[in-house]
Amino acid sequence: MELNTSVGIVSAQRATFDTPLTFRSGAVLPRYELVYETYGTLNADKSNAILICHALSGNHHVAGSYADAPKNVGWWDNMVGPGKPIDTNKFFVIGLNNLGGCHGSTGPISINPETGKPYGASFPVVTVEDWVESQVRLADLLGITQFAAVLGGSLGGMQAMQWSLSYPERVRHVLVIAAAPHLTAENIAFNDVARNAILTDPDFHGGHYYEHGVVPTRGLRLARMLGHITYLSGDAMADKFGRSLRSGKLGFSYDIEFEIESYLRYQGDKFASYFDANTYLLMTKALDYFDPAREFEGNLDKAFAAARADFLVLSFSTDWRFSPDRSREIVSALLHNRLNVSYGEITSTHGHDSFLMQHAHYHELVRAYLARVSSEFSA
Amino acid sequence: MELNTSVGIVSAQRATFDTPLTFRSGAVLPRYELVYETYGTLNADKSNAILICHALSGNHHVAGSYADAPKNVGWWDNMVGPGKPIDTNKFFVIGLNNLGGCHGSTGPISINPETGKPYGASFPVVTVEDWVESQVRLADLLGITQFAAVLGGSLGGMQAMQWSLSYPERVRHVLVIAAAPHLTAENIAFNDVARNAILTDPDFHGGHYYEHGVVPTRGLRLARMLGHITYLSGDAMADKFGRSLRSGKLGFSYDIEFEIESYLRYQGDKFASYFDANTYLLMTKALDYFDPAREFEGNLDKAFAAARADFLVLSFSTDWRFSPDRSREIVSALLHNRLNVSYGEITSTHGHDSFLMQHAHYHELVRAYLARVSSEFSA
Repeated sequence: MELNTSVGIVSAQRATFDTPLTFRSGAVLPRYELVYETYGTLNADKSNAILICHALSGNHHVAGSYADAPKNVGWWDNMVGPGKPIDTNKFFVIGLNNLGGCHGSTGPISINPETGKPYGASFPVVTVEDWVESQVRLADLLGITQFAAVLGGSLGGMQAMQWSLSYPERVRHVLVIAAAPHLTAENIAFNDVARNAILTDPDFHGGHYYEHGVVPTRGLRLARMLGHITYLSGDAMADKFGRSLRSGKLGFSYDIEFEIESYLRYQGDKFASYFDANTYLLMTKALDYFDPAREFEGNLDKAFAAARADFLVLSFSTDWRFSPDRSREIVSALLHNRLNVSYGEITSTHGHDSFLMQHAHYHELVRAYLARVSSEFSA
Repeated sequence: MELNTSVGIVSAQRATFDTPLTFRSGAVLPRYELVYETYGTLNADKSNAILICHALSGNHHVAGSYADAPKNVGWWDNMVGPGKPIDTNKFFVIGLNNLGGCHGSTGPISINPETGKPYGASFPVVTVEDWVESQVRLADLLGITQFAAVLGGSLGGMQAMQWSLSYPERVRHVLVIAAAPHLTAENIAFNDVARNAILTDPDFHGGHYYEHGVVPTRGLRLARMLGHITYLSGDAMADKFGRSLRSGKLGFSYDIEFEIESYLRYQGDKFASYFDANTYLLMTKALDYFDPAREFEGNLDKAFAAARADFLVLSFSTDWRFSPDRSREIVSALLHNRLNVSYGEITSTHGHDSFLMQHAHYHELVRAYLARVSSEFSA
């Protein structure tokens, strides 16, 4: 059953946009590039396209692997492929690297043509709304006037929601997974500590570290370590690591002693070796800013009055970053607007990270919902 | 009612101990000093003494204020004083700065007589058990063979528990407030991020920053910011700060924007200006190590078999650092040993910090319990 369910060898593509993009901040990017991958085949009337929006550290490499790097498997390969919940036999699936990212799309590490140097800290603060604007141009380029579905987990789910508000006529279904209608004060607080770790790293150099030949590894490592705590559940950590000591006994030093320390530091080191600190800052800021209800005096019902899509909202029982309560806020607002909403609260021990995991119930819910979506168009 | 309930002007005292203290790690401190304060009067048979153990950032200045610094009010002044829940009309109350601290007792900032330089990173890693050993000598010095009660919140509650295990015959009542029988993997993870913020600060210099004329302010600030998130409840943050913007509108920069950011950075800056980073490291390590059940294959019931005291255990509904579940683990183990246990689960919005707050129900529980304690001796 699980044989041949990979999209196989994939390769990234690149799109260039020469029409200036005005950000919500007022900043203007005269020209930008987006790197993306596609899986499956766009049908004749271009009605079977799905856009996958990525979360904080994601990118365009959603599924499959590269010919020259067979072990570099896409971050959602368990979800996307022939016969998988997001079935590439039926759907034409697009993954892209967000503007401001560090995996090929124009971002802080890109060369600013006006200066000949990396944008660095001068790259505009980008919002979820700005991403949707950049993504709609990619849809235009591919001739997709309406997506069968836009979906994502966490920050990706926020982009999916924003699609339903910014371009209600261009998306039939929205899948919002492990997301929230806005960050709480506590969410922002965690992001602020992570940002401060980067901003105060002496190697940050005000965001222009590229020119100094250094990277703020210490800050980025701390940010990721902290992030990881909030992605996991306390129960999952207890089950996986508990109070196990690496050497079996206390060392009375500040070296790694508990297994959880070993795990966190490894995750921090790994992340800091490939991710860009300026991109990390931008991503956390986009999270903090997302709040469609803000311009409606905090009334989420009114914010969703513009939406026309059908929705599947999913949350995970042990996700304390964006708990099921937060998803229910979204569901409630959608219901108040008499939209078609399916909601699933999935029992999982893996906390916020659950949305990336192979989980039978979760995958079956996505599969069933998308089977309905695919029944609406001819292959 | 609230008039004249302060212990008034107090002054710190200093005790010197010349008998070498062997730490759990095997390290030996040939000589050490403890700074402490006392409130109230020790009765004739020395049966009315209460020892207050402090938490991570606490010290010996529990109540009252100093003649030369009237605004420097003790950290638990709302709890300790004449007519207050810990009633200094009835009890002789002792607060001390823990060994390894940075408020007067021998610690990393103290001069090591062998080198003529501050101990810095060479100060031994200190455990809750070591603290109890150092505290019992202070009791000896004051002629107190048995405390009416030993008590504390958070890490202070762990010391109180340890007293009942290390010196069961020397304490009649133990009050364990907002504590846990050991840290979870998640608790340790937060501590490890805080420690790494300090350890990787270029100004840390392997713990010997005193000699370099610098302090690892950045790391200590981050550690405290992170700590603060775990001391508060998500609800309290939401109520107090929500998503309020300092200037009323988004700034699209990394300056302070949300009120919660302002609060956290202020707390971080303030703390980093007076607290010692090496002490912070020691305190978090003592937290991580505390685990009386470890030598009993994780069986807390067996660990408490040594205890003889009566117990009051208190927890707070929104404390997610040491949740009520953790207190119930303690209560369960005490009950299995047929000890006298009172348990109170207090509804409070203030998270872990609740134990420091003025809270009527909480204070009444402490007051009522200690009234019983004071009825056992003659004033």
